[in-house]
Amino acid sequence: MNARATRRGNLVVGVDIGGTKTAILVCEADGTVRARAVAPTAVGAPDHAAATIATIVEGAIRDANASPDDVAALGVGVPGRVDRERGQVTLAVNLDWHDLPLGPRLEAALGIPTFLENDVRAAALGLHRRRLFGPAESLAFLAIGTGISAGVMLDGVLHRGAHGLAGEIGHVIIEPEGTRCACGNRGCFETVAAGPAIVSRTLAGWAARRNGHDDGASAWSADADHDAGDEASRVRRIGAEAVYAAAAAGDPVAADVVDAAGRAIAWGIHLLALAYDVTRIVIGGGVSHAGDSFMTPVQRELDRYRASSPLAAEILLPDLVQLLPAGADAGAWGAVTIARESLGLDVESPTLARSSDMHEGG
Amino acid sequence: MNARATRRGNLVVGVDIGGTKTAILVCEADGTVRARAVAPTAVGAPDHAAATIATIVEGAIRDANASPDDVAALGVGVPGRVDRERGQVTLAVNLDWHDLPLGPRLEAALGIPTFLENDVRAAALGLHRRRLFGPAESLAFLAIGTGISAGVMLDGVLHRGAHGLAGEIGHVIIEPEGTRCACGNRGCFETVAAGPAIVSRTLAGWAARRNGHDDGASAWSADADHDAGDEASRVRRIGAEAVYAAAAAGDPVAADVVDAAGRAIAWGIHLLALAYDVTRIVIGGGVSHAGDSFMTPVQRELDRYRASSPLAAEILLPDLVQLLPAGADAGAWGAVTIARESLGLDVESPTLARSSDMHEGG
Repeated sequence: MNARATRRGNLVVGVDIGGTKTAILVCEADGTVRARAVAPTAVGAPDHAAATIATIVEGAIRDANASPDDVAALGVGVPGRVDRERGQVTLAVNLDWHDLPLGPRLEAALGIPTFLENDVRAAALGLHRRRLFGPAESLAFLAIGTGISAGVMLDGVLHRGAHGLAGEIGHVIIEPEGTRCACGNRGCFETVAAGPAIVSRTLAGWAARRNGHDDGASAWSADADHDAGDEASRVRRIGAEAVYAAAAAGDPVAADVVDAAGRAIAWGIHLLALAYDVTRIVIGGGVSHAGDSFMTPVQRELDRYRASSPLAAEILLPDLVQLLPAGADAGAWGAVTIARESLGLDVESPTLARSSDMHEGG
Repeated sequence: MNARATRRGNLVVGVDIGGTKTAILVCEADGTVRARAVAPTAVGAPDHAAATIATIVEGAIRDANASPDDVAALGVGVPGRVDRERGQVTLAVNLDWHDLPLGPRLEAALGIPTFLENDVRAAALGLHRRRLFGPAESLAFLAIGTGISAGVMLDGVLHRGAHGLAGEIGHVIIEPEGTRCACGNRGCFETVAAGPAIVSRTLAGWAARRNGHDDGASAWSADADHDAGDEASRVRRIGAEAVYAAAAAGDPVAADVVDAAGRAIAWGIHLLALAYDVTRIVIGGGVSHAGDSFMTPVQRELDRYRASSPLAAEILLPDLVQLLPAGADAGAWGAVTIARESLGLDVESPTLARSSDMHEGG
């Protein structure tokens, strides 16, 4: 909040609708943050979603001592597929939204021109424009959360693909005989390294251990048995982060799951590097928030690639892979970027490059 | 050959240097073919390579009733990495060329401005410009030969990547515990589906069968034993095409190898579709010349993907994958396209779209 007078229509708002929480940034046209808000994502009837989002957007605008009339554009990042022309969410599986006209509804409720984009793509665009990791003209943002996908900037342009599906590498098959994926195929990248897979693999491993199927049962696992139920319920409640914590605390089942996920993520990074030959691959998404315990097995596997293959060493340069800090708000900044670009604001404003903004309110 | 008068500097020449043969097209600026030549690729000392290529280019120009002075630009497709600025072949493993200044040497020998490009990328550009498979703005050319890589056109622009390595999907890992690849890693896509892998897997399978390691030994394999030596020497001489022939004739070892290659190629197509979301994936390269026996296992696996996954069915549309006819000369046409673009000729000349040119001399 600051005391500067608000010129009418001067603000832009970015909304990042996550699986569990919705983050909102109210900014001036040059990117200066005026207000920030976070609210649980409304997972009720899709018909009420627009009204709920409009209410929290209005609250955030009020926090910035402004009114919706002061906002020139609203950008919205959605965890799913969008029809940008019609402002429609075609499919957001985790929110159970099908053909939801979110854009027109928000416009009707707020009177602000609204622009939708897939959340991961919006984040990739925002990372590029804000130059958080230097002036990389080509970068991929690999989001590892409930699902896995990549947003890809090539020579400064967001690559959406012919059907808006470019970067959906979460469904490239990594284990042909593996677990059935939500998409229908077996052994997609997501079935090894996305949050739900990490949780279910760990729970299955613990169940097998309790039932004596673990041939390598150690003193640790015998000790752990009496509270495996508590641990399991924590994992069910908290998700992948609790698995990473258990692995860090020495649980061999969790460690195996985390190692397998790390190897798979390194494989995905190698795939992205070979397919697109970008100069930056930024890792984000909820699973990545486990920080060091997340990155260590990934880096170990990347080092293995580099050690055995000169080609891998050349393409997996030491500064290629960067972990997005958990408070970086890449999604909300991406949504702000979508709003700014809709106004034709200069796409690489140096004021947006200040990384000090990044941690604001994180 | 035709009787039209040659205007000075009116011609363009494309040279496609393959692992075994070099193909040359001499064309008028509008793409009309004036002469075509094919010669074995000189695999002697790299120092003589430019002189040898210059000689066959001169011969082809003579066949077109022209002289080097009549040629405005020479495009050269090289099976390896090139430094386009310096006209240097950085690395062409199969030709044993390292830092070879091919462009300057050809210019010195012929007096024609010369432009180098990776062969698979040149072919992708040529396929796009000639609209052989309709006006697809985004397409991938997947070349399966001695190695595997893809040339990718995105929204009408050739995507080279930051280090000229974009599309090198032959080194994405498909079998983590698999065979060691020339790149140093294990189980790269190339180790299952490239020509040398198809040959060596078949020879190893036959050797195991002769040594009685094949538990599923059938009447067929018992019958086949007495001439397995002949078959093996044919495969060593002819390569993957002989394996496809043996599979078509009912050899179970060859059939297994061909099936595994087909599944891997379908996996690669799925990967390309998810990563780039292109509207056409054109398959070419020496291994693909086996035609139906090549495509049948690929299509079978793609159908399996489509049947189990609505996402796969959506992205793997029936007209997505096209097999390049063996006589299509995609590499030489790509090199012609490189030459034309260097002259700033209009990039989508409709006269180049006539598919009748395609089979010329094929």
